[in-house]
Amino acid sequence: MPTIVVDVMPKAELLDPQGKAVSGALSRLGVDSFTGVRIGKRFELTVDGPVDDALLAQARTLADEILSNAVIEDVVGIEVVE
Amino acid sequence: MPTIVVDVMPKAELLDPQGKAVSGALSRLGVDSFTGVRIGKRFELTVDGPVDDALLAQARTLADEILSNAVIEDVVGIEVVE
Repeated sequence: MPTIVVDVMPKAELLDPQGKAVSGALSRLGVDSFTGVRIGKRFELTVDGPVDDALLAQARTLADEILSNAVIEDVVGIEVVE
Repeated sequence: MPTIVVDVMPKAELLDPQGKAVSGALSRLGVDSFTGVRIGKRFELTVDGPVDDALLAQARTLADEILSNAVIEDVVGIEVVE
């Protein structure tokens, strides 16, 4: 069953408190290999049939208008996974 | 700057209330192209330098033990993005 995966991340210029919290926790645990952590969302939209261009365009519109908040988030990826 | 992306999704056999809510909202908006929606998390771990096997292994351990809750979530992907 094909799945359309939509990745949404907080905008780069905005503070991501969730990511900061995880980043701080990693530091306290002695893990210093990573300079930053940001946390976004991954949506899996299941499709019952083939994915054509029209459906992908619809998914893109949904991603921009409903799944993400354009004020604070960016849609960083839309891909089809079989 | 390379980034290690970790994708975490709720286990397939568990209810995902967030996804159900979005799925219901889409139905009410007249969008019926998608049979299901599940919502997970996308972590972006920024690395200050090259990503070698040891670092990737460390990211994998972190993903399993800290970034995800193995009781209710699966790590569905770890990849390096330049």
